[in-house]
Amino acid sequence: MAKRKPVKLGAIIHGVGGNISGWRHPEVPADASVSFSFYKEQAQLAEAGKIDLVFIADGLYITEKSIPHFLNRFEPLTLLSALASVTSRIGLVGTLSTSYSEPFTVARQFGSLDHLSGGRAGWNLVTSPLEGSAKNYGKPEHPTHDERYKIAEEHLEVTRGLWDSWEDDAFVRDKATGVFFDPEKLHRLDHKGEYFSVQGPLNIGRSRQGQPVVFQAGSSESGKNLAAKGADAVFTGHETLEEAKLFYREVKERAVAYGRSEDDIVILPGISPIIGRTFEEAERKYEEIASLVSIENALDYLGRFFEHHDFSQYPLDEPFPDIGDLGSNSFRSGTDKIKQTAKEQGLTLRQVALRSATPRGQFIGTPEHIADLIQQWHEEKGADGFIIHSSLPSGLRDFVELVIPILQERGIYRTEYESDTLRGNLGLKVPVNRYTAEKVQS
Amino acid sequence: MAKRKPVKLGAIIHGVGGNISGWRHPEVPADASVSFSFYKEQAQLAEAGKIDLVFIADGLYITEKSIPHFLNRFEPLTLLSALASVTSRIGLVGTLSTSYSEPFTVARQFGSLDHLSGGRAGWNLVTSPLEGSAKNYGKPEHPTHDERYKIAEEHLEVTRGLWDSWEDDAFVRDKATGVFFDPEKLHRLDHKGEYFSVQGPLNIGRSRQGQPVVFQAGSSESGKNLAAKGADAVFTGHETLEEAKLFYREVKERAVAYGRSEDDIVILPGISPIIGRTFEEAERKYEEIASLVSIENALDYLGRFFEHHDFSQYPLDEPFPDIGDLGSNSFRSGTDKIKQTAKEQGLTLRQVALRSATPRGQFIGTPEHIADLIQQWHEEKGADGFIIHSSLPSGLRDFVELVIPILQERGIYRTEYESDTLRGNLGLKVPVNRYTAEKVQS
Repeated sequence: MAKRKPVKLGAIIHGVGGNISGWRHPEVPADASVSFSFYKEQAQLAEAGKIDLVFIADGLYITEKSIPHFLNRFEPLTLLSALASVTSRIGLVGTLSTSYSEPFTVARQFGSLDHLSGGRAGWNLVTSPLEGSAKNYGKPEHPTHDERYKIAEEHLEVTRGLWDSWEDDAFVRDKATGVFFDPEKLHRLDHKGEYFSVQGPLNIGRSRQGQPVVFQAGSSESGKNLAAKGADAVFTGHETLEEAKLFYREVKERAVAYGRSEDDIVILPGISPIIGRTFEEAERKYEEIASLVSIENALDYLGRFFEHHDFSQYPLDEPFPDIGDLGSNSFRSGTDKIKQTAKEQGLTLRQVALRSATPRGQFIGTPEHIADLIQQWHEEKGADGFIIHSSLPSGLRDFVELVIPILQERGIYRTEYESDTLRGNLGLKVPVNRYTAEKVQS
Repeated sequence: MAKRKPVKLGAIIHGVGGNISGWRHPEVPADASVSFSFYKEQAQLAEAGKIDLVFIADGLYITEKSIPHFLNRFEPLTLLSALASVTSRIGLVGTLSTSYSEPFTVARQFGSLDHLSGGRAGWNLVTSPLEGSAKNYGKPEHPTHDERYKIAEEHLEVTRGLWDSWEDDAFVRDKATGVFFDPEKLHRLDHKGEYFSVQGPLNIGRSRQGQPVVFQAGSSESGKNLAAKGADAVFTGHETLEEAKLFYREVKERAVAYGRSEDDIVILPGISPIIGRTFEEAERKYEEIASLVSIENALDYLGRFFEHHDFSQYPLDEPFPDIGDLGSNSFRSGTDKIKQTAKEQGLTLRQVALRSATPRGQFIGTPEHIADLIQQWHEEKGADGFIIHSSLPSGLRDFVELVIPILQERGIYRTEYESDTLRGNLGLKVPVNRYTAEKVQS
């Protein structure tokens, strides 16, 4: 096997926890999702661990039933910008939906974050799984899954086009002659498409990494295609190594089919490690988190994936109910899997709800065990790296202090940042400006 | 005369200068408009001077003819968020257009900045004067001046409504009982209007200042009405004290007519002080700046106010040409004034262009002279304070080091921040949450 590039790592920071009742844990500051000092501390901890990036998730619709973290939280671009000035090397990646945004604004804000951070910005492109989002944006209805991906593809094309408005050496800034820029190196996009018409040029140039790193997080067929065609990185999720390998191979092959190289796209499954000095301690930590979730909260949480469906109407200890197509227009890949697993394993509604609320996964145990799994998934091409999603703030500390040193000792993780841009650390090339490239070719 | 509240002060930070050729000055870093270290230094300088707020202007359309500062610059919300974590007391105000944005996104991003900064956010609401903006947002045409103000009024109504989604004590966060919030204190807006339909609730609560401070910057009739009805502060511009007093009285009276108090709205004209130890030194500084502007650049700059009209087609040394209605749908109050002054004073095109490019104003001279004018405008109710717009970075330093101590000595300017929120420093009340207010009344 050819030598693999070192493991890449990201860390999701979820203020009061990605876990529905994580905020109840004694160690979680109950206002963490709107506490900048909390985010700053976590981002600086991740940077101390030489982690490639912090990741801020997002959503555009809440109801009374939403998980506490979603009810009251920072908006990603503003939060990441604030983090830019208190960190120096770590990448800053945030979620933004193509279904409810304008390419000109998206290109500007991520372009601006990219300059503010010296080339550390990343955009996690999503299409908004929650149907209710339409109601907050005056749209008659949420576009279908397929249409959302068509919009996303065109949105990304426009945004990338705007990012290239200025060639890298366009700004001459010659005080003596008064020439600020070279007009030959300023380009208008003049895009007229099915969903967007955008003239340009953008009023900000490219940063040191050329363009922000584009993440794609959907794992449906359309999601995989969009990723393979145009994303720099994929944030995915798998329960088994076999599943991860299949996904990895598929996306890399599709990328090659689109004329790209395998190295042009980095695949990063999310994992939720629970780390103990012994397996028993790790198990105790899991139980401690899981026990915070009431069955009512677990049902609400489950409902969120199925268009806020009310699961409290069904008997708890009978087989998972037949809910037909529900959920296929929101988190499709996730809801399909829930239904399938319930059927295959004959789970009751109670079991499905509690497992969904506190996923257990494989990455639970001693630091060596976690490091072994990471190494295996990486070596066997299930992943180029991982997005760490800790249920508790101390989980990130455990990972940085206990797991990373093992990975470093094994020579599969950096001891110093290789670059000061996100693209550089992820081992991705700076994309040549499209207009410069045209000139070179002609 | 009743004792006036102390003078309020803001500082515009314009990377490579609000002046069209300011970037050519030896002291200006030629990349300042995308240099975070430049903005950080200027914001910290303003904070050292106990200035109420920094102000970041914006625009959504550029052409080759745009002034250098506009071509390549940070986007306000991301920049202000980055400044939030390197300042602690100063207000952070940025421009955002209601003509090309969604209230849900605006409410979230300013709400998020407000939390990140501990209650220091301000939104300068504009309607986008530049017609070309429509082309970057896929709109068939730029709305007319009147329609833009109707949109703005509804946008602001929705945004303020969303900001009140959560009552101040809605978040209970009781770990023992698992109650995160009180559902009685969460409110859906359910707005259905002419331009916007927004359900809510917003996924972020109110900050310590209740709502971000809303600035309004247009000085047309519609602008004045919008300000009087719904803004907390007005950023305006006047050449003479008489003009300023008229505007001041008018807006305060209209605010009272809308059922508000005179103290509910703060009026801040923009001034461009040029400070010398002697009058001669100030004059030399002005000449130094003015001489950087070529007549070609001045004509381009003038054209920008008139829908990018090409003024190079007219003879330079003949009376300002008759251009009909041009400009009335963009910067209306500004273009009307240019035309009127040209006519009244019989100016040539060259004179109009050079004066527009390097406005001179009254605020030029020794620190005492500037302080005298500030005191007079303030005492005679031409202003509650001022937005300082320095042509050069050293202008802000001169103001902080030379003018502010005089104002402090005279007892009309603070020596310490009174509050740690922007609202508190501006002497504005925290608005009671609309739903809490309803309960109190009923």
